[in-house]
Amino acid sequence: MSQAASGAAPLVPVLAVVGVGLIGGSFAAALRKQGAVGRILGVGRQRASVMEARKLGLIDEIATLEQAAAEADLIMLSAPVGATRPLLEGLLPFLRADTLITDAGSTKADVVKAAHAALGDRVGQFIPGHPVAGAEKAGPEAADPMLYRGRKVVLTPLPQNRAADRERLQRIWEACGAQVMVMEPEVHDKVLASVSHVPHFLSSVFMWQVATAADSDLRMALAASGFRDFTRISAGSAEVWRDIFLSNRAAVLSELREVKEALARAEQALEHADGPALEKFLERAATARRLWGSRSGM
Amino acid sequence: MSQAASGAAPLVPVLAVVGVGLIGGSFAAALRKQGAVGRILGVGRQRASVMEARKLGLIDEIATLEQAAAEADLIMLSAPVGATRPLLEGLLPFLRADTLITDAGSTKADVVKAAHAALGDRVGQFIPGHPVAGAEKAGPEAADPMLYRGRKVVLTPLPQNRAADRERLQRIWEACGAQVMVMEPEVHDKVLASVSHVPHFLSSVFMWQVATAADSDLRMALAASGFRDFTRISAGSAEVWRDIFLSNRAAVLSELREVKEALARAEQALEHADGPALEKFLERAATARRLWGSRSGM
Repeated sequence: MSQAASGAAPLVPVLAVVGVGLIGGSFAAALRKQGAVGRILGVGRQRASVMEARKLGLIDEIATLEQAAAEADLIMLSAPVGATRPLLEGLLPFLRADTLITDAGSTKADVVKAAHAALGDRVGQFIPGHPVAGAEKAGPEAADPMLYRGRKVVLTPLPQNRAADRERLQRIWEACGAQVMVMEPEVHDKVLASVSHVPHFLSSVFMWQVATAADSDLRMALAASGFRDFTRISAGSAEVWRDIFLSNRAAVLSELREVKEALARAEQALEHADGPALEKFLERAATARRLWGSRSGM
Repeated sequence: MSQAASGAAPLVPVLAVVGVGLIGGSFAAALRKQGAVGRILGVGRQRASVMEARKLGLIDEIATLEQAAAEADLIMLSAPVGATRPLLEGLLPFLRADTLITDAGSTKADVVKAAHAALGDRVGQFIPGHPVAGAEKAGPEAADPMLYRGRKVVLTPLPQNRAADRERLQRIWEACGAQVMVMEPEVHDKVLASVSHVPHFLSSVFMWQVATAADSDLRMALAASGFRDFTRISAGSAEVWRDIFLSNRAAVLSELREVKEALARAEQALEHADGPALEKFLERAATARRLWGSRSGM
């Protein structure tokens, strides 16, 4: 039985979502579906986008940052990470003392810095988070109440956060069907640099190289399903990913160095036509990928 | 109306498939479905695999190389490219003068060399080919008569081939639903190095690097759908891909150098925290990928 049906107060009486795209919209939709939310305010840069979100029933009202700060019990920031500091600064003057803010940014150390800079001694009201859910699609029309079902959500709480708030946020994400993991922001950023940011960087570099080659038309004509999957992520929003790379610059550069070392070794085996070494490296990768696929169900 | 139903002789009275996995099995199944083939012989290294192919109805009889050479009108080699020369050498002593041989190997210059070495002055009976179809799955049970529908097949004919044979092979592939492109082996190899072999190499290097990291378990736990797609091809057969890389070594190494140059430029933009340069490069890649996706329907 959902909480609403039980008559108890919902987990989140008033939710404000800042940036009602796939991530924020799906968060709102998941909580609504669980009866875990009362009223939902939507704040957005683009009028058309929040209008669409209201039309789709993802949000109840279009609001300003000021209204969100004054009325919401929970504020979810789901805008590009580069916007975190100005958004928090916009919220601060109107922020109720018992309002909890969280975010969905793909990097965390930078977001923590932005939160300290913007909120000062009220930084305890902000708990950084990152739902690790694929974002192949974008926009409010892609929002899906099941998006977080079975997905990981990383929280990187601050020492200033209240334990009760941390537990509440964890329950909220669990209501969305997610599995919460808690870690240090730097650990999160290093791991995400590896399994998310570096693949995007390499996929984009490769796609750029093919697209700018003199014979790119012929190349594209003979590109098949391997190309399709390897390059899919490169179609993502340039603005969002620029922000992610800048925000996690050191960790991404460091991981890229590791990948380049591995690449140099594999290239050397190829240069020397060393079949056994090549096969060993390919077999190690293939085995790991197959194991991951069967364990993750992806 | 299929050819069989029309009462005319089928396009291929006797077909022999050497290596009855996804590629060879799908070729046999497609021609059978079109009524374009009479009898189908299957030759395989692994007894269990050809037995399975017969059970599935992909082939009518299990045969030896000698039988295939003596009985078939068309022989399709769909084994790893490294096996091309020994297979052709095995066929030669028994090969009828009017038998046409083709292959499905992912590289062509090396296959042409192997054909000259193995067949000598009978090399005109061999027309190199490559159906550019994704091979996510493997084995006879994955064979699909629709696999080549709408896909590209590259033929790299030799000066020694008879025009009538070239035309016949083109009609055979078209009967499978494929679109035939004709080009020089070196052009094929350069283009495939770019859009197929390099992505596989990079995907495998990346997967290897993640799998061998000290914290690989945590990385794998936070890997999501971007990781899934970027690494999918790395799960492919290490043996098959070792052969492809060795067989197309120079072109792959050359393309890797181009990709590394592009990578160095993108890294430099990131190192300098040059947002506009980063966004421009990401936008160019994203636009090209979206255009390819909408044009190719993939």
